[in-house]
Amino acid sequence: MSKSQFGPSNIMFPTPAALIVSGTFEKANIATIAWITNLSGQPPILGMAMGKKKYSLELIRQYKEFSVNIPSSGYVKETDFCGITSGRNVDKFQKTGFTKLESSKISSPIIKECPLNLECKWHSEVDFGNTVLVVGNILETHFDADKLKEGDIPAEQFDVAKAEPFAYFNRLKQYRRIGDLLDTAYESGKDLF
Amino acid sequence: MSKSQFGPSNIMFPTPAALIVSGTFEKANIATIAWITNLSGQPPILGMAMGKKKYSLELIRQYKEFSVNIPSSGYVKETDFCGITSGRNVDKFQKTGFTKLESSKISSPIIKECPLNLECKWHSEVDFGNTVLVVGNILETHFDADKLKEGDIPAEQFDVAKAEPFAYFNRLKQYRRIGDLLDTAYESGKDLF
Repeated sequence: MSKSQFGPSNIMFPTPAALIVSGTFEKANIATIAWITNLSGQPPILGMAMGKKKYSLELIRQYKEFSVNIPSSGYVKETDFCGITSGRNVDKFQKTGFTKLESSKISSPIIKECPLNLECKWHSEVDFGNTVLVVGNILETHFDADKLKEGDIPAEQFDVAKAEPFAYFNRLKQYRRIGDLLDTAYESGKDLF
Repeated sequence: MSKSQFGPSNIMFPTPAALIVSGTFEKANIATIAWITNLSGQPPILGMAMGKKKYSLELIRQYKEFSVNIPSSGYVKETDFCGITSGRNVDKFQKTGFTKLESSKISSPIIKECPLNLECKWHSEVDFGNTVLVVGNILETHFDADKLKEGDIPAEQFDVAKAEPFAYFNRLKQYRRIGDLLDTAYESGKDLF
Protein backbone atom coordinates (compact mmCIF):
# COMPACT_ATOMS: atom_id res chain seq x y z
CA MET A 1 0.00 0.00 0.00
CA SER A 2 1.43 3.32 -1.04
CA LYS A 3 1.14 6.81 0.39
CA SER A 4 -0.24 9.88 -1.37
CA GLN A 5 1.05 13.35 -0.51
CA PHE A 6 -1.15 16.43 -0.30
CA GLY A 7 1.04 19.20 1.01
CA PRO A 8 0.54 20.98 4.33
CA SER A 9 -2.94 20.35 5.76
CA ASN A 10 -4.92 20.83 8.98
CA ILE A 11 -6.68 17.49 8.48
CA MET A 12 -5.58 15.87 11.78
CA PHE A 13 -8.53 14.10 13.45
CA PRO A 14 -10.64 13.48 15.48
CA THR A 15 -11.31 16.76 17.28
CA PRO A 16 -14.11 17.95 19.54
CA ALA A 17 -16.73 20.41 18.33
CA ALA A 18 -16.87 22.42 21.55
CA LEU A 19 -19.38 25.16 22.23
CA ILE A 20 -17.63 28.12 23.84
CA VAL A 21 -19.87 30.47 25.79
CA SER A 22 -18.52 33.96 26.50
CA GLY A 23 -19.93 37.21 27.82
CA THR A 24 -22.32 37.63 30.73
CA PHE A 25 -25.42 35.60 31.55
CA GLU A 26 -27.65 38.26 30.02
CA LYS A 27 -25.51 38.85 26.95
CA ALA A 28 -23.89 35.51 26.22
CA ASN A 29 -22.55 34.30 22.89
CA ILE A 30 -21.74 30.81 21.60
CA ALA A 31 -18.83 29.90 19.30
CA THR A 32 -18.06 26.44 17.91
CA ILE A 33 -14.37 25.63 18.31
CA ALA A 34 -12.67 22.43 17.15
CA TRP A 35 -9.10 23.57 17.71
CA ILE A 36 -9.01 22.95 21.45
CA THR A 37 -6.82 20.82 23.70
CA ASN A 38 -5.75 20.23 27.26
CA LEU A 39 -2.42 21.89 28.00
CA SER A 40 -1.70 21.02 31.64
CA GLY A 41 -3.04 18.60 34.23
CA GLN A 42 -1.84 20.25 37.41
CA PRO A 43 -3.28 22.81 37.43
CA PRO A 44 -5.87 21.91 34.78
CA ILE A 45 -5.38 24.24 31.83
CA LEU A 46 -6.77 24.13 28.30
CA GLY A 47 -6.27 26.20 25.19
CA MET A 48 -8.24 26.93 22.04
CA ALA A 49 -7.20 28.57 18.79
CA MET A 50 -9.57 31.22 17.45
CA GLY A 51 -9.58 33.57 14.50
CA LYS A 52 -8.59 37.05 15.59
CA LYS A 53 -11.75 38.66 14.24
CA LYS A 54 -14.14 36.47 16.23
CA TYR A 55 -16.75 38.23 18.35
CA SER A 56 -16.21 35.63 21.08
CA LEU A 57 -12.58 36.66 21.33
CA GLU A 58 -13.68 40.23 22.05
CA LEU A 59 -16.02 39.00 24.78
CA ILE A 60 -13.39 36.71 26.31
CA ARG A 61 -10.88 39.56 26.38
CA GLN A 62 -13.49 41.82 28.01
CA TYR A 63 -14.74 39.45 30.73
CA LYS A 64 -11.70 37.15 31.06
CA GLU A 65 -13.75 33.97 31.30
CA PHE A 66 -15.65 31.42 29.20
CA SER A 67 -17.28 28.03 29.44
CA VAL A 68 -16.53 24.97 27.30
CA ASN A 69 -19.59 22.84 26.55
CA ILE A 70 -19.45 19.46 24.82
CA PRO A 71 -22.65 18.78 22.86
CA SER A 72 -24.39 15.47 22.27
CA SER A 73 -25.29 14.14 18.83
CA GLY A 74 -28.87 15.36 19.12
CA TYR A 75 -27.59 18.92 18.87
CA VAL A 76 -25.32 18.69 15.86
CA LYS A 77 -27.36 21.20 13.82
CA GLU A 78 -27.24 23.72 16.67
CA THR A 79 -23.48 23.13 16.97
CA ASP A 80 -22.95 23.71 13.28
CA PHE A 81 -25.17 26.79 13.36
CA CYS A 82 -23.00 28.35 16.08
CA GLY A 83 -19.98 27.73 13.87
CA ILE A 84 -21.30 29.37 10.70
CA THR A 85 -22.90 32.48 12.23
CA SER A 86 -21.56 35.45 14.19
CA GLY A 87 -22.82 36.68 17.55
CA ARG A 88 -22.41 40.19 16.19
CA ASN A 89 -25.58 39.62 14.15
CA VAL A 90 -27.42 36.76 15.85
CA ASP A 91 -28.52 35.85 19.38
CA LYS A 92 -27.36 32.25 19.21
CA PHE A 93 -29.10 31.18 22.42
CA GLN A 94 -32.36 32.46 21.01
CA LYS A 95 -31.90 30.86 17.59
CA THR A 96 -30.72 27.46 18.85
CA GLY A 97 -33.04 27.22 21.82
CA PHE A 98 -30.11 26.30 24.07
CA THR A 99 -30.80 26.99 27.75
CA LYS A 100 -28.42 29.07 29.87
CA LEU A 101 -27.54 27.77 33.32
CA GLU A 102 -25.68 29.84 35.90
CA SER A 103 -22.03 28.83 36.31
CA SER A 104 -20.67 28.51 39.84
CA LYS A 105 -17.35 30.33 39.47
CA ILE A 106 -17.68 32.57 36.40
CA SER A 107 -20.33 34.91 35.06
CA SER A 108 -20.54 33.35 31.57
CA PRO A 109 -23.26 30.67 31.65
CA ILE A 110 -23.01 27.00 30.72
CA ILE A 111 -25.35 25.23 28.26
CA LYS A 112 -27.89 22.99 29.97
CA GLU A 113 -28.35 20.69 26.95
CA CYS A 114 -24.63 19.81 26.84
CA PRO A 115 -23.73 16.80 29.03
CA LEU A 116 -20.27 18.14 29.90
CA ASN A 117 -19.43 21.72 30.86
CA LEU A 118 -16.16 23.32 31.99
CA GLU A 119 -15.89 26.73 33.58
CA CYS A 120 -12.68 28.52 32.60
CA LYS A 121 -10.87 31.69 33.55
CA TRP A 122 -8.68 33.46 30.98
CA HIS A 123 -5.01 32.70 31.68
CA SER A 124 -3.04 34.05 28.72
CA GLU A 125 -2.88 34.25 24.94
CA VAL A 126 -0.35 33.12 22.36
CA ASP A 127 -0.28 34.79 18.96
CA PHE A 128 -0.11 32.68 15.78
CA GLY A 129 -0.65 35.31 13.10
CA ASN A 130 -4.26 34.99 11.92
CA THR A 131 -5.24 33.07 15.06
CA VAL A 132 -4.66 33.35 18.77
CA LEU A 133 -4.45 30.53 21.30
CA VAL A 134 -6.67 31.50 24.23
CA VAL A 135 -5.45 29.69 27.34
CA GLY A 136 -7.73 29.16 30.32
CA ASN A 137 -7.59 27.66 33.79
CA ILE A 138 -10.31 25.04 34.24
CA LEU A 139 -12.09 26.02 37.45
CA GLU A 140 -15.07 23.66 37.55
CA THR A 141 -16.57 20.66 35.73
CA HIS A 142 -20.28 19.89 35.42
CA PHE A 143 -21.84 16.67 34.17
CA ASP A 144 -25.44 15.76 33.65
CA ALA A 145 -26.31 13.73 36.74
CA ASP A 146 -28.17 11.20 34.61
CA LYS A 147 -25.06 10.59 32.48
CA LEU A 148 -23.24 8.98 35.40
CA LYS A 149 -23.08 5.23 35.66
CA GLU A 150 -24.22 4.99 39.28
CA GLY A 151 -25.37 8.36 40.51
CA ASP A 152 -23.16 11.03 42.00
CA ILE A 153 -19.77 9.31 41.87
CA PRO A 154 -16.33 10.29 40.57
CA ALA A 155 -15.58 11.82 37.19
CA GLU A 156 -14.25 8.51 35.89
CA GLN A 157 -17.79 7.10 36.03
CA PHE A 158 -19.09 9.48 33.42
CA ASP A 159 -20.96 7.40 30.86
CA VAL A 160 -19.85 8.37 27.37
CA ALA A 161 -22.49 6.19 25.71
CA LYS A 162 -25.25 8.13 27.47
CA ALA A 163 -23.66 11.47 26.58
CA GLU A 164 -23.61 10.55 22.86
CA PRO A 165 -20.77 12.91 21.92
CA PHE A 166 -19.53 13.35 18.39
CA ALA A 167 -16.30 14.30 16.66
CA TYR A 168 -15.52 16.87 14.00
CA PHE A 169 -13.32 16.20 10.99
CA ASN A 170 -11.68 19.35 9.69
CA ARG A 171 -11.23 19.71 5.91
CA LEU A 172 -13.55 16.70 5.46
CA LYS A 173 -16.49 18.75 6.79
CA GLN A 174 -17.90 15.81 8.69
CA TYR A 175 -19.41 15.29 12.11
CA ARG A 176 -19.20 11.64 13.12
CA ARG A 177 -20.67 9.76 16.04
CA ILE A 178 -18.45 8.33 18.74
CA GLY A 179 -18.85 4.57 18.63
CA ASP A 180 -18.19 1.55 20.80
CA LEU A 181 -15.52 1.10 23.40
CA LEU A 182 -12.45 -0.21 21.59
CA ASP A 183 -10.03 -0.81 24.46
CA THR A 184 -8.86 0.40 27.88
CA ALA A 185 -6.13 3.02 28.06
CA TYR A 186 -3.04 2.33 30.21
CA GLU A 187 -3.99 -1.37 30.08
CA SER A 188 -4.28 -2.70 26.55
CA GLY A 189 -0.67 -1.88 25.68
CA LYS A 190 0.60 -4.15 28.46
CA ASP A 191 0.00 -7.08 26.11
CA LEU A 192 3.15 -5.97 24.29
CA PHE A 193 5.40 -5.89 27.37
CA MET B 1 -32.18 16.85 34.72
CA SER B 2 -29.63 18.22 37.16
CA LYS B 3 -25.90 18.82 36.93
CA SER B 4 -23.20 17.29 39.15
CA GLN B 5 -19.98 19.19 39.86
CA PHE B 6 -16.58 17.53 40.07
CA GLY B 7 -14.09 20.35 40.41
CA PRO B 8 -11.41 21.19 37.84
CA SER B 9 -10.87 18.32 35.38
CA ASN B 10 -9.11 17.55 32.09
CA ILE B 11 -12.00 15.36 30.95
CA MET B 12 -12.84 17.27 27.74
CA PHE B 13 -13.42 14.86 24.84
CA PRO B 14 -13.00 13.49 22.23
CA THR B 15 -9.29 13.83 21.49
CA PRO B 16 -6.96 12.08 19.05
CA ALA B 17 -4.42 9.51 20.23
CA ALA B 18 -1.64 10.65 17.94
CA LEU B 19 1.66 8.85 17.53
CA ILE B 20 4.51 11.36 17.52
CA VAL B 21 7.72 10.17 15.93
CA SER B 22 10.90 12.06 16.80
CA GLY B 23 14.63 11.54 16.29
CA THR B 24 16.32 10.30 13.14
CA PHE B 25 15.30 7.42 10.86
CA GLU B 26 17.86 5.15 12.51
CA LYS B 27 17.11 6.21 16.07
CA ALA B 28 13.42 7.10 16.08
CA ASN B 29 11.10 7.13 19.06
CA ILE B 30 7.29 7.07 19.29
CA ALA B 31 5.19 8.94 21.89
CA THR B 32 1.39 8.82 22.22
CA ILE B 33 -0.05 12.31 22.60
CA ALA B 34 -3.72 13.15 23.08
CA TRP B 35 -3.25 16.83 23.92
CA ILE B 36 -2.81 18.05 20.38
CA THR B 37 -4.65 20.60 18.26
CA ASN B 38 -4.45 22.69 15.14
CA LEU B 39 -3.39 26.25 15.93
CA SER B 40 -3.36 28.03 12.57
CA GLY B 41 -4.64 27.36 9.06
CA GLN B 42 -2.45 29.72 7.07
CA PRO B 43 0.24 28.68 7.48
CA PRO B 44 -0.80 25.25 8.86
CA ILE B 45 0.49 25.02 12.43
CA LEU B 46 -0.30 22.54 15.20
CA GLY B 47 0.67 22.23 18.82
CA MET B 48 0.90 19.42 21.36
CA ALA B 49 1.33 19.53 25.13
CA MET B 50 3.95 17.15 26.55
CA GLY B 51 5.35 16.46 29.99
CA LYS B 52 8.71 18.14 30.41
CA LYS B 53 10.50 14.91 31.27
CA LYS B 54 9.52 13.08 28.11
CA TYR B 55 12.30 11.53 26.06
CA SER B 56 10.49 12.65 22.88
CA LEU B 57 10.78 16.26 24.00
CA GLU B 58 14.55 15.86 24.22
CA LEU B 59 14.64 14.42 20.70
CA ILE B 60 12.36 17.12 19.30
CA ARG B 61 14.53 19.82 20.84
CA GLN B 62 17.63 18.18 19.41
CA TYR B 63 16.43 17.62 15.84
CA LYS B 64 13.72 20.31 15.61
CA GLU B 65 11.24 18.10 13.78
CA PHE B 66 8.67 15.35 14.32
CA SER B 67 5.89 13.49 12.54
CA VAL B 68 2.27 13.15 13.68
CA ASN B 69 0.72 9.80 12.80
CA ILE B 70 -2.98 8.98 13.31
CA PRO B 71 -3.46 5.25 13.98
CA SER B 72 -6.37 3.04 12.94
CA SER B 73 -8.36 0.92 15.36
CA GLY B 74 -6.40 -2.21 14.52
CA TYR B 75 -3.38 -0.68 16.25
CA VAL B 76 -4.91 0.44 19.54
CA LYS B 77 -2.68 -1.84 21.63
CA GLU B 78 0.43 -0.50 19.93
CA THR B 79 -0.83 3.05 20.49
CA ASP B 80 -1.41 2.39 24.17
CA PHE B 81 1.97 0.70 24.49
CA CYS B 82 3.72 3.79 23.13
CA GLY B 83 1.91 5.86 25.77
CA ILE B 84 2.85 3.74 28.80
CA THR B 85 6.52 3.11 28.00
CA SER B 86 9.56 5.36 27.57
CA GLY B 87 11.88 5.42 24.60
CA ARG B 88 14.74 5.75 27.08
CA ASN B 89 14.30 2.05 27.85
CA VAL B 90 12.47 0.56 24.88
CA ASP B 91 12.83 0.57 21.09
CA LYS B 92 9.16 1.19 20.37
CA PHE B 93 9.41 0.47 16.65
CA GLN B 94 10.92 -2.90 17.44
CA LYS B 95 8.36 -3.76 20.15
CA THR B 96 5.28 -2.63 18.23
CA GLY B 97 6.36 -3.87 14.82
CA PHE B 98 5.50 -0.50 13.28
CA THR B 99 7.30 0.14 9.99
CA LYS B 100 9.34 3.30 9.41
CA LEU B 101 8.89 5.13 6.11
CA GLU B 102 11.14 7.96 4.98
CA SER B 103 9.55 11.39 5.28
CA SER B 104 9.93 13.78 2.37
CA LYS B 105 10.84 16.99 4.22
CA ILE B 106 12.16 15.93 7.65
CA SER B 107 14.56 13.26 8.89
CA SER B 108 12.16 11.75 11.47
CA PRO B 109 10.25 8.91 9.76
CA ILE B 110 6.49 8.42 9.47
CA ILE B 111 4.65 5.23 10.47
CA LYS B 112 3.56 3.13 7.47
CA GLU B 113 0.66 1.48 9.33
CA CYS B 114 -0.99 4.83 10.18
CA PRO B 115 -3.40 6.03 7.45
CA LEU B 116 -2.62 9.71 8.06
CA ASN B 117 0.82 11.23 8.61
CA LEU B 118 1.93 14.84 9.01
CA GLU B 119 5.53 16.01 8.76
CA CYS B 120 6.26 18.90 11.12
CA LYS B 121 9.12 21.27 11.81
CA TRP B 122 9.60 22.68 15.31
CA HIS B 123 8.32 26.27 15.44
CA SER B 124 8.33 27.32 19.10
CA GLU B 125 7.46 26.23 22.63
CA VAL B 126 5.15 27.65 25.29
CA ASP B 127 5.76 26.79 28.93
CA PHE B 128 2.87 25.66 31.15
CA GLY B 129 4.71 24.56 34.28
CA ASN B 130 4.84 20.76 34.23
CA THR B 131 4.12 20.66 30.52
CA VAL B 132 5.28 22.44 27.41
CA LEU B 133 3.29 23.14 24.25
CA VAL B 134 5.46 22.14 21.32
CA VAL B 135 4.36 24.09 18.25
CA GLY B 136 5.18 22.88 14.76
CA ASN B 137 4.69 23.97 11.17
CA ILE B 138 2.93 21.26 9.15
CA LEU B 139 5.12 20.76 6.08
CA GLU B 140 3.56 17.74 4.40
CA THR B 141 0.58 15.38 4.65
CA HIS B 142 0.55 11.70 3.66
CA PHE B 143 -2.50 9.46 3.30
CA ASP B 144 -2.73 5.80 2.47
CA ALA B 145 -3.60 5.78 -1.21
CA ASP B 146 -6.16 3.04 -0.63
CA LYS B 147 -7.98 5.21 1.94
CA LEU B 148 -9.05 7.66 -0.72
CA LYS B 149 -12.52 7.44 -2.16
CA GLU B 150 -11.53 7.57 -5.81
CA GLY B 151 -7.79 7.28 -6.16
CA ASP B 152 -5.35 10.14 -6.05
CA ILE B 153 -7.71 13.07 -5.54
CA PRO B 154 -7.88 15.99 -3.07
CA ALA B 155 -7.52 15.76 0.69
CA GLU B 156 -11.25 16.20 1.14
CA GLN B 157 -11.79 12.77 -0.41
CA PHE B 158 -9.99 10.96 2.39
CA ASP B 159 -12.29 8.14 3.48
CA VAL B 160 -12.56 8.17 7.27
CA ALA B 161 -14.51 4.90 7.32
CA LYS B 162 -11.64 3.09 5.61
CA ALA B 163 -9.08 4.65 7.94
CA GLU B 164 -10.98 3.39 11.01
CA PRO B 165 -9.63 6.03 13.41
CA PHE B 166 -10.44 6.08 17.11
CA ALA B 167 -10.71 8.66 19.86
CA TYR B 168 -9.18 8.82 23.32
CA PHE B 169 -11.11 9.82 26.44
CA ASN B 170 -8.85 11.29 29.09
CA ARG B 171 -9.66 10.52 32.75
CA LEU B 172 -12.10 7.84 31.53
CA LYS B 173 -9.20 5.76 30.19
CA GLN B 174 -11.13 4.74 27.12
CA TYR B 175 -10.38 4.35 23.46
CA ARG B 176 -13.56 4.47 21.39
CA ARG B 177 -14.23 3.83 17.73
CA ILE B 178 -15.29 6.63 15.43
CA GLY B 179 -18.77 5.80 14.20
CA ASP B 180 -21.14 6.77 11.43
CA LEU B 181 -21.41 10.08 9.65
CA LEU B 182 -23.79 12.22 11.71
CA ASP B 183 -24.05 15.36 9.60
CA THR B 184 -22.24 17.71 7.22
CA ALA B 185 -20.30 20.63 8.68
CA TYR B 186 -21.00 24.15 7.34
CA GLU B 187 -24.30 22.79 5.99
CA SER B 188 -26.47 21.21 8.66
CA GLY B 189 -26.69 24.40 10.71
CA LYS B 190 -28.33 26.24 7.81
CA ASP B 191 -31.60 24.57 8.81
CA LEU B 192 -31.72 27.07 11.68
CA PHE B 193 -31.25 30.19 9.53
